[in-house]
Amino acid sequence: MCRYKISVEYDGSFFCGWQQQRQDQVLLSVVSQRKLRYSQSTIRKYSVQGVIEMAVFNITGEHVIVEGAGRTDSGVHAFNQTAHFDLLKFVDPHRLQSGINFYTRMHGCSILSISIVESDFHARFSAKSREYIYRVINRNAPLMLDQTRAWHVIQQLELNNMMIAAQHFLGTHDFKAFRAAECQSKTTIKTVDYFNISKQNELIEFHVKSRSFLHNQVRIMVGTIVWIGLKKLPVSIIEHLLIDGTRSNAGPTAPAYGLYLLRINY
Amino acid sequence: MCRYKISVEYDGSFFCGWQQQRQDQVLLSVVSQRKLRYSQSTIRKYSVQGVIEMAVFNITGEHVIVEGAGRTDSGVHAFNQTAHFDLLKFVDPHRLQSGINFYTRMHGCSILSISIVESDFHARFSAKSREYIYRVINRNAPLMLDQTRAWHVIQQLELNNMMIAAQHFLGTHDFKAFRAAECQSKTTIKTVDYFNISKQNELIEFHVKSRSFLHNQVRIMVGTIVWIGLKKLPVSIIEHLLIDGTRSNAGPTAPAYGLYLLRINY
Repeated sequence: MCRYKISVEYDGSFFCGWQQQRQDQVLLSVVSQRKLRYSQSTIRKYSVQGVIEMAVFNITGEHVIVEGAGRTDSGVHAFNQTAHFDLLKFVDPHRLQSGINFYTRMHGCSILSISIVESDFHARFSAKSREYIYRVINRNAPLMLDQTRAWHVIQQLELNNMMIAAQHFLGTHDFKAFRAAECQSKTTIKTVDYFNISKQNELIEFHVKSRSFLHNQVRIMVGTIVWIGLKKLPVSIIEHLLIDGTRSNAGPTAPAYGLYLLRINY
Repeated sequence: MCRYKISVEYDGSFFCGWQQQRQDQVLLSVVSQRKLRYSQSTIRKYSVQGVIEMAVFNITGEHVIVEGAGRTDSGVHAFNQTAHFDLLKFVDPHRLQSGINFYTRMHGCSILSISIVESDFHARFSAKSREYIYRVINRNAPLMLDQTRAWHVIQQLELNNMMIAAQHFLGTHDFKAFRAAECQSKTTIKTVDYFNISKQNELIEFHVKSRSFLHNQVRIMVGTIVWIGLKKLPVSIIEHLLIDGTRSNAGPTAPAYGLYLLRINY
């Protein structure tokens, strides 16, 4: 048995998220369908995991489970997601990479690199930390070059207030107020290693790092900070939320299409 | 009469280029058609100019000609194109901007700013210089997040050779070898103010500035420099081409979708 580690880039707009949904099983029956047309509204989307599993099946005939490090939601992009899967028969990594890309590139997903790892490597459980980027464009005019790539915030953001408030995220806290209702994590205690905000002209970029995140944690953190920037919430709200833990007192969940999984560190 | 100056951002993938084509006239008859669906292959594209003219007509009832500073080709993007047009009746610039954007945003084009200028201002002829960015991504794996936004070059580029060769573009030269066959410019003598190449991981960015360019000049310059980076052409070829002037000795025309009109300086 051979364990393969892969780095994956994808445009989240084309997927229902990382994880396989039940209806994805149908993918294995459409292996001959070379070009699938996507439209945001009419055609349902596949998961990144499902598309890669289908490609591996096409090449090797093996039904694998591709285990990802971070289960990104529908619309969330990845510069560099990490995953692993096992093959019974050895396949040359380079040949496997171009083979998978032959199938996945038309779906909006690309294998950046592939390598053989020890059988105790686990994309999800061996991960030391995860890094995300969130992009906000703060201007009046509609976005054209970043339409599905950034959150468009029209009203002027008060960057200073956002930076002051964001400092309170650093360190170990109870992030109960910053998780989705459907989050299944047993503990809500997480350690945020950094939460940097940088601005270049109209682009505001959040760079967040932690060992692991709760479901929607990054998006709710960004949504709350943006609400502070819009003066819809006071700067002091973060401190309160980390003690109080009530989701409804936090800001909105920032849209998925502004979020990018930057990298997984091992 | 009132002259309006506009800054425009657009995703070139959705347009047949800046300039109005004859078939665009039909646009004025589809003013009620709120949402036009585009597909790269099946539906023909409009020009940026035509889409803005249609929007201005919808709002004011006036048939204007929108004069752009740079006539970008099909597929070429713009961070900030400048154009002007005249209205017989005064319309508040802010109202006009949001009115135009209401129509143009669904076509892939957005008015960033609008202002009233003197009647002797001319977007094309008053321009002091034009700046373009060209993006190359140099890696093996297919592009997913930059599929229609950068030229994908697979083989390793020799950046040093490219930088040495590019130095020869600076200054005033005869760029006869760097223009499209259909270029109608009377003179081929142009002055390149700068031609910078920068690299950040796999992204190589060319930043070019000149008072004006020949048709396809930036794309042929980039294509030739990339060919030098691939060692398909010697470093010394640029010097020869600037004297010799034979288009067929230069490199290919780099793909349109890697090119961005950065700004027009007045």
